[in-house]
Amino acid sequence: MKHYQALEKIFCRLHNLEHLGSITGWDEASKMPEGGGDARAKALTELSLIEHEIITNPDLGGHFKGATQEIEKTGTNWQKANLLEMKRYWKDATCLNKDLVERKSLATIKCGQIWRELRAKNDWDQFLPYQKEVIEISKEESQVRAKMTGLSPYDSLLDMYEPGLHSIQCDGIFDELKSILPDLIKRIQSKQKEANYLTPKGPFPTQKQKELGMILMKKTGFDFQHGRLDESHHPFCGGVPDDVRITSRYDENDLSEGLMGVLHETGHAKYEQSLPKEWRSQPVGKARGMAFHEGQSLLMEMQICRSRSFLNFATPFMADIFGKDSTSKELTPENLYKGYTKVTPDFIRVNADEVTYPLHVILRYEIEKEIIEGALETKDLPKIWDEKMIQYFGLSTKGNDKDGCMQDGHWPGGAFGYFPSYTIGALIAAQLFKTLNKDLPEAMDHIASGNFSEIDQWLREKVWSKGCLLSGDELLKQATGESLNSKYFIDHLKNRYLL
Amino acid sequence: MKHYQALEKIFCRLHNLEHLGSITGWDEASKMPEGGGDARAKALTELSLIEHEIITNPDLGGHFKGATQEIEKTGTNWQKANLLEMKRYWKDATCLNKDLVERKSLATIKCGQIWRELRAKNDWDQFLPYQKEVIEISKEESQVRAKMTGLSPYDSLLDMYEPGLHSIQCDGIFDELKSILPDLIKRIQSKQKEANYLTPKGPFPTQKQKELGMILMKKTGFDFQHGRLDESHHPFCGGVPDDVRITSRYDENDLSEGLMGVLHETGHAKYEQSLPKEWRSQPVGKARGMAFHEGQSLLMEMQICRSRSFLNFATPFMADIFGKDSTSKELTPENLYKGYTKVTPDFIRVNADEVTYPLHVILRYEIEKEIIEGALETKDLPKIWDEKMIQYFGLSTKGNDKDGCMQDGHWPGGAFGYFPSYTIGALIAAQLFKTLNKDLPEAMDHIASGNFSEIDQWLREKVWSKGCLLSGDELLKQATGESLNSKYFIDHLKNRYLL
Repeated sequence: MKHYQALEKIFCRLHNLEHLGSITGWDEASKMPEGGGDARAKALTELSLIEHEIITNPDLGGHFKGATQEIEKTGTNWQKANLLEMKRYWKDATCLNKDLVERKSLATIKCGQIWRELRAKNDWDQFLPYQKEVIEISKEESQVRAKMTGLSPYDSLLDMYEPGLHSIQCDGIFDELKSILPDLIKRIQSKQKEANYLTPKGPFPTQKQKELGMILMKKTGFDFQHGRLDESHHPFCGGVPDDVRITSRYDENDLSEGLMGVLHETGHAKYEQSLPKEWRSQPVGKARGMAFHEGQSLLMEMQICRSRSFLNFATPFMADIFGKDSTSKELTPENLYKGYTKVTPDFIRVNADEVTYPLHVILRYEIEKEIIEGALETKDLPKIWDEKMIQYFGLSTKGNDKDGCMQDGHWPGGAFGYFPSYTIGALIAAQLFKTLNKDLPEAMDHIASGNFSEIDQWLREKVWSKGCLLSGDELLKQATGESLNSKYFIDHLKNRYLL
Repeated sequence: MKHYQALEKIFCRLHNLEHLGSITGWDEASKMPEGGGDARAKALTELSLIEHEIITNPDLGGHFKGATQEIEKTGTNWQKANLLEMKRYWKDATCLNKDLVERKSLATIKCGQIWRELRAKNDWDQFLPYQKEVIEISKEESQVRAKMTGLSPYDSLLDMYEPGLHSIQCDGIFDELKSILPDLIKRIQSKQKEANYLTPKGPFPTQKQKELGMILMKKTGFDFQHGRLDESHHPFCGGVPDDVRITSRYDENDLSEGLMGVLHETGHAKYEQSLPKEWRSQPVGKARGMAFHEGQSLLMEMQICRSRSFLNFATPFMADIFGKDSTSKELTPENLYKGYTKVTPDFIRVNADEVTYPLHVILRYEIEKEIIEGALETKDLPKIWDEKMIQYFGLSTKGNDKDGCMQDGHWPGGAFGYFPSYTIGALIAAQLFKTLNKDLPEAMDHIASGNFSEIDQWLREKVWSKGCLLSGDELLKQATGESLNSKYFIDHLKNRYLL
């Protein structure tokens, strides 16, 4: 097993180096003063180059050949899966040359930094050249990856975030949702008109919102011995499984955005924190893919935390923290439920309700596919965004690019092919949660009483403990008895919003 | 110049990698949850190994040979100095083998983490094996370095922190201070008995102390576009020149510890932030050494911030922040001056006044020299610490190791040879400040009116802009007209405390 063992050592090194990138990446987005940006971009790029050097070392070819034979003969299933994942990383990395790795890293980090500044100023014109450079590099990358994978350029990017996910599957699912959602949204909106939701009146001081977030993180199983909560421009989950860094952002007049951000990221965090401890230095020990990751965050945020049961449990903490009279009409579980399930076509994806959310994703999917395929130029992004917003939401973003094509950090960061993970994740969440409730009929009661141990136990057994032992499809099949099926998500929407 | 240029590229890489270590090191001490410690130790160790691999690449030997010839012929002074510094780094790094680098990194990071936990519990017995391992490794390192440098083992460590500083110089200075200070302290104490200092009454909420710290950082020239203030177990200055991370710690009943920590670290930070921007990726662009660094922090904390002039300027901000009546007797410049110059033999070095401080350093210097020379065993540290505390301060630390030999992070972190920098730094600070006041007779008036631009201009011209262009001795000579002379420090103490 000397070849296989040599590979384990190399991937352990890479794992340690990734740790430095994750923590300094988190720092870049949540702590770093603006003036530190250039030096940080150079440092992170150097790290990418070192990682690239290690993984493209010509010795690896021989090791993979040898290890494949070794594992075929006497390997365990775990080693087989690990070798498979190692090969995937290796191919993903070796198809890019050093020059492209360097250009991509510098351009995406710089563009991400500039984006934070120019989005706030709604300044598309100044932003355009930075975004254009990143798009050109992403197109170049997609061509290289396409040649290596035999997939289309866009699919070769999709495959990076959720291995095995291709646009033919996305197209099918998204077409179905496009045919159902507009009508569903109208019906829900007309039903909700009568609901008399009372907006909780702020201000809700940021510090208190954070306190509330931390209390609910703790109650829902986030391990503060291995992670922390901070603030950033956009909520995200970063860090490493032994030290997960989640962030949110707060609006003092709104009780939803900050808290739901925290709970969404807590879903990601629990997945990371629950990956098998002993596997963590190896590729097989990582999370299955970004759609599965979003599946965990959306199971937490949408399925659990926006339920009546959870709000029954959580409302007293809110009343406690904000010192509101607990009999006030605004901070009751039922009123908050109305708020957290209110369906309103709006501009911002991350603040969207779960019914309109897929349309935000579909809009981005359609645009980014055209961009990568070369059918759309960067300069035309504001125009097509505006057109599609009118088409899907009846809202125009003309002159309002900060709430239009500049609203997300993904494209500045070069993460083309990521967006579909959100909606595939929403489907995975609904399918998992359906099965969970079947296996654990008292799950909603547990949630209402703030007892998450059995729910976590189910998720740990079915998903979190598996790392990358199985393909995404196999993982879902073993957990739920079938491949991805949009039925569960659509049923969930109908049940929650129309019954 | 191809060899020299190849070296510049390699050192630029190392500079970028150091950035990652500095930021994750800051994070480790100020943000990381306890459970992240093991993974962080592995990641930082991997980084050390990568840096070691790069700098011990056999190609460098040829490059140094070639570059020496190139620079001799046509090199500028800047390139000459840079090459000299590169060689120093190279020799410092290549004399250690990979195994020692790895063992040292893992042991010191682990011991530092355990120290934070066990110091709080005053648990020397549990701590002993960790400290012993670090000491054995430091002894091993000192032997290797001694062989390479031709210096004694302890001097070879001293030389790492302040190049050119050897124990023969320390011995002379420390003997002089030992002969003067005990009597001086007695005279000052008897003089201060009549001073009627009124201790400002807390509580001073941590959040407000931080606000005050940030206001005074800004007023004294800290650039928040390129740095930040956080909290940690022990105050320190970390990060990189483009993004300096300083920390302090706060006691809600004490207005001195947290604020003076902030101002001390601000002195370090201003040196880092003012190093020449274009030189930063090269060794010649770094700070001169740790004694010079402490010279900057002590010039700030002791010479400037504990002066009547500064307290005249700063007191109104304190009254403002803490909402005290500005005519109260406690928050007056004169009363605060009495407090910030109060001389009291006590247990903790970092909280010590500037008169007793050197004795804390001398105590550590004498002990660590014996440890490195093998004349003292780790297990005997509490005993010898107690003996020397009684000898120098009349205070026993028996059974109180948290305020005794466990109080500092240096030995857990393997930083033997660092402590003398503090007192050499105090001498440098006094000598620089004396010259500064000669060159800029209105300096104290500037301080009193909160105008630091001309003082900074002087320091920038004489010290900060020089990086490592000159040796420490030459830097001091060009700035002050003479080599290090303890007279200025002793005069400063007599003038401030006995006149």
